[in-house]
Amino acid sequence: MILGRGSKNGNDAPYYGRHFDQWRITCATQWHAFIQHKFFLSLADGSLPPKNFVYFLRQDYIFLLQFARAWGQITSKGSDISEIRMATAMMHQLINSKLQMHIELCNDEGIDTQKLFETTENPATTAYLKHFENVGASGDFIDLMAVLSPSFLGYAEIGSFLASLKTAPKYQRWITTYTDKNHQVSCHHIGRVIDDAIVQRLGADAMTTERWQTLCDRFRITTKLEVNFLDMSLSG
Amino acid sequence: MILGRGSKNGNDAPYYGRHFDQWRITCATQWHAFIQHKFFLSLADGSLPPKNFVYFLRQDYIFLLQFARAWGQITSKGSDISEIRMATAMMHQLINSKLQMHIELCNDEGIDTQKLFETTENPATTAYLKHFENVGASGDFIDLMAVLSPSFLGYAEIGSFLASLKTAPKYQRWITTYTDKNHQVSCHHIGRVIDDAIVQRLGADAMTTERWQTLCDRFRITTKLEVNFLDMSLSG
Amino acid sequence: MILGRGSKNGNDAPYYGRHFDQWRITCATQWHAFIQHKFFLSLADGSLPPKNFVYFLRQDYIFLLQFARAWGQITSKGSDISEIRMATAMMHQLINSKLQMHIELCNDEGIDTQKLFETTENPATTAYLKHFENVGASGDFIDLMAVLSPSFLGYAEIGSFLASLKTAPKYQRWITTYTDKNHQVSCHHIGRVIDDAIVQRLGADAMTTERWQTLCDRFRITTKLEVNFLDMSLSG
Amino acid sequence: MILGRGSKNGNDAPYYGRHFDQWRITCATQWHAFIQHKFFLSLADGSLPPKNFVYFLRQDYIFLLQFARAWGQITSKGSDISEIRMATAMMHQLINSKLQMHIELCNDEGIDTQKLFETTENPATTAYLKHFENVGASGDFIDLMAVLSPSFLGYAEIGSFLASLKTAPKYQRWITTYTDKNHQVSCHHIGRVIDDAIVQRLGADAMTTERWQTLCDRFRITTKLEVNFLDMSLSG
Repeated sequence: MILGRGSKNGNDAPYYGRHFDQWRITCATQWHAFIQHKFFLSLADGSLPPKNFVYFLRQDYIFLLQFARAWGQITSKGSDISEIRMATAMMHQLINSKLQMHIELCNDEGIDTQKLFETTENPATTAYLKHFENVGASGDFIDLMAVLSPSFLGYAEIGSFLASLKTAPKYQRWITTYTDKNHQVSCHHIGRVIDDAIVQRLGADAMTTERWQTLCDRFRITTKLEVNFLDMSLSG
Repeated sequence: MILGRGSKNGNDAPYYGRHFDQWRITCATQWHAFIQHKFFLSLADGSLPPKNFVYFLRQDYIFLLQFARAWGQITSKGSDISEIRMATAMMHQLINSKLQMHIELCNDEGIDTQKLFETTENPATTAYLKHFENVGASGDFIDLMAVLSPSFLGYAEIGSFLASLKTAPKYQRWITTYTDKNHQVSCHHIGRVIDDAIVQRLGADAMTTERWQTLCDRFRITTKLEVNFLDMSLSG
Repeated sequence: MILGRGSKNGNDAPYYGRHFDQWRITCATQWHAFIQHKFFLSLADGSLPPKNFVYFLRQDYIFLLQFARAWGQITSKGSDISEIRMATAMMHQLINSKLQMHIELCNDEGIDTQKLFETTENPATTAYLKHFENVGASGDFIDLMAVLSPSFLGYAEIGSFLASLKTAPKYQRWITTYTDKNHQVSCHHIGRVIDDAIVQRLGADAMTTERWQTLCDRFRITTKLEVNFLDMSLSG
Repeated sequence: MILGRGSKNGNDAPYYGRHFDQWRITCATQWHAFIQHKFFLSLADGSLPPKNFVYFLRQDYIFLLQFARAWGQITSKGSDISEIRMATAMMHQLINSKLQMHIELCNDEGIDTQKLFETTENPATTAYLKHFENVGASGDFIDLMAVLSPSFLGYAEIGSFLASLKTAPKYQRWITTYTDKNHQVSCHHIGRVIDDAIVQRLGADAMTTERWQTLCDRFRITTKLEVNFLDMSLSG
């Protein structure tokens, strides 16, 4: 079973624009470690112990709250209404759909809302979130896109793969969120915004610039932080 | 004809929580200059020349884009999900409803979208937006609420008054946005978030603290900037 | 009398690195309007009325305080210790030397410190400072250098020219600050930091990138805001 | 041997103003764990292994660079020139004195500058720095002072204690920096700025407000992060 193959490699990973595609390719090892992570495979076949699922959900709740804030910060960095509109749509989805689902799934597993809110952040979560804040303080719109896209578009890629499998019913609700068609539509839109934003700032040959290397570095570091986050969820 | 009477004064201005109510009272002169501004009265009776309406819309478009960004910044300052959720709802409304309406109303008046986007910011707009940015850089959640609420809740108060009048059909679409019931519901919610946020940070007796005076100052300065913005729209 | 000739044009304007030099050249008209502004010429020959000098000093005090804050913000955006060290040196100079001189010069002209602190910001100052804040919120290190350098290096260029003239004694203390050798040394250093920062981010051929155009735009807009600031000082 | 006794407790810990004093008292356990940390005791008697000293210096280098950035951010939050002047002085000291010393001490121990720059951040450092960034994004001037003062004034208290001991020569240069008289003078000044800033914002009875509790919480959490940082240095 192979997930997360970059579309240029002749496989069927979803395509979210040419710059995101190239980002995936330049850090193929880390990207595969993320997309093919044992956490997702065991979630799919139902072998993931509930305590690890809950551990993940609770850390992910902390993560998503700060993730939503980072999209809020994107609004200051966006140069026009389309960039701001995308960030707003993302926040809306994260706050009103994703975080709400986390609360309900935790409740189902016996973690009440108050207990969820009091979760202690683990070091992998801390490191990931600090990365967002560093880039948010020092970078511009496309810097932030390079660190926000691995998670958002990566989970959509995972969802797209899981949709092609016969998955166990155990974690179906979580899986459905990411395999959802509407989710894919919004991810394709984000891919287009990324393409437009990079061309507007670095030109049509953006990939030949020095700046592009920095963006690739940011993307790769973020992907690695994502893998650490999943490792911690399995061992937590 | 009198608008914008603070609810404690025995009149029928809508009530958006006790702290906002007190803010209005402490700058009653400036508040009345805002709520009773000739711009709104002439909008209501249809005597406002279309060129001033368009001038206002174009400046307000610039204003609202930055206003949405300030709500995006609120997400970094909010301490819990309810504060972040409110900011997200505000951004959603501003970007997808208010700004969209401005584009359409301008189009109706012969200003196409590209021309709208190229509007030159007038000094009153600049001064108002700089105020948001200063407070955003230096202050916390309640500082920002003191500078964001005059506009948002003030227009709802104006809408509430206009709803009680027999208004001319000329500017009906604009008027309807602010008299809309859903708009009032979201404003009441914001009023509650403000009350909770201030009590959480300054205690139940917040109004006796030094900090409260600073918040009142910020509210008053903002209200004055709002009046200048409307003055400019009449003379522009 | 001609000031502010770009060094590539075969004249004797000081050279603060190749990127700054190119920035000056791409907005030659606005740059000359700044460097050759009547405000400086009348300051040099002593014909500037004291009330305009004081008006300028008071607005410039407000400006420099926010200017120092923008250099403080640079520290978050700098990628290494040399960039942060430069920003720190700038803040030190602005806060402990420039602002202190403004206080003393105002005192000499009968404006006591409290009165100086209570100066009302004029619209040209507001517009200039809002520009800093916008770029600070949305851009990265080199974006900020493009908007901070026109003022800092421009005044050094003006100082360099004034040093070559026989100036009237009237405003000598102010003039001396900018003709000072140490000031020139720190400006040459800033020029090198700008060159290194741009090459590090956009490559050796930075000037061929899309991003370079944006930097040139930011520089030109800033220069125009500087001219407006000086116009206001003459008419204020 | 007892260090770091709050001055109200009848001992001889240096006094850096009444609010800082109260902060120390409200988290006495954590404060003592910080000030009396085995790391400092073994540094004083020379028993600390050089490898732990170097480990500490390298992490502290990363820490101080971000610490300087946080003081840079203070300039945006300061309300007047005295607050901005203090932040500037702090940055100057951190960048030009402290960080320079770290580079030289590391060089002495065989870690060249390039190797120092490439140090990998440990999780305790990450957690501490993320805390600064969170408070920087969400809070105001006094919030930031509550998280920046434990380190700066705490090390001065440690220095004051070490000055009263007969310390081994081994780590004398490091010790001297913190026992230095000028360092104490600048710390007393910071204490006064904190007192003034809190009274200006929360009034003379600040300690009775809800907000004060939040400041105490921030101070305590920071102190705990400082202890974790030192633990890591001993075990690293």
